[in-house]
Amino acid sequence: MTATCSMCRRWNDDSDLRIIELDHSYVTLNRDQFFPGYTLLFTKQHVTELFHLERAHRSELMDEVSRVAAALYDVFSPAKLNYELLGNMVPHMHWHLIPRFTDDPLWPRPIWAEPHEEQRLTIAGYRERVALIKEALA
Amino acid sequence: MTATCSMCRRWNDDSDLRIIELDHSYVTLNRDQFFPGYTLLFTKQHVTELFHLERAHRSELMDEVSRVAAALYDVFSPAKLNYELLGNMVPHMHWHLIPRFTDDPLWPRPIWAEPHEEQRLTIAGYRERVALIKEALA
Repeated sequence: MTATCSMCRRWNDDSDLRIIELDHSYVTLNRDQFFPGYTLLFTKQHVTELFHLERAHRSELMDEVSRVAAALYDVFSPAKLNYELLGNMVPHMHWHLIPRFTDDPLWPRPIWAEPHEEQRLTIAGYRERVALIKEALA
Repeated sequence: MTATCSMCRRWNDDSDLRIIELDHSYVTLNRDQFFPGYTLLFTKQHVTELFHLERAHRSELMDEVSRVAAALYDVFSPAKLNYELLGNMVPHMHWHLIPRFTDDPLWPRPIWAEPHEEQRLTIAGYRERVALIKEALA
């Protein structure tokens, strides 16, 4: 836990977006839902690169990434999942997991190819989406 | 092997960019070197999503991704590695592994945030870069 790291605080800060706590990671819905189902998976440990993790830890973490991606696939039936580990702005390891659809405005380009207006949901809207993903993970 | 898949053919098509053949993947330098060290790791198997792989296979594949990322880190000393598994255009699993630098023109934004002119190297330039990465992997 690093006091200045926004990702270390995110599970608390975004408590309304919580999906699940796993062994090595926390999973929350992304507040901007311009891409429906956009989810973040971030490590409990303040770590940066994949190669900083021990083999078994990395393997289990990638199982968690894969499990959440499968749940998103089940709920949203996208054409493709996008998995991105960047961290240029916040180096604490976090995976962007984004269901992509052939009728989304940026398809087939990466989600960063064009700026867009943030799309927020109502409290009920977030709850419903979180509940669907939780159910698929159960 | 799918005859129509460009990623299935890439190891042959981009033979001048070959870095290494691993157990589950092929690794080549990206032809566009606007981001120095930009490398592609693509699976031998024509597969799409992380959750389509069996656990042991996925774990070993992610070790390969991690090993190549570590080598790129050693060679280029970037501020951060970016790891992206997209596949919207070519669904055959391929990882974009991109060293990012605080003085690269798009930092700290994702590499897709702005279009850029493709940067090709000379034959000797590609050879040198490939040789450096190979050496770090050895």
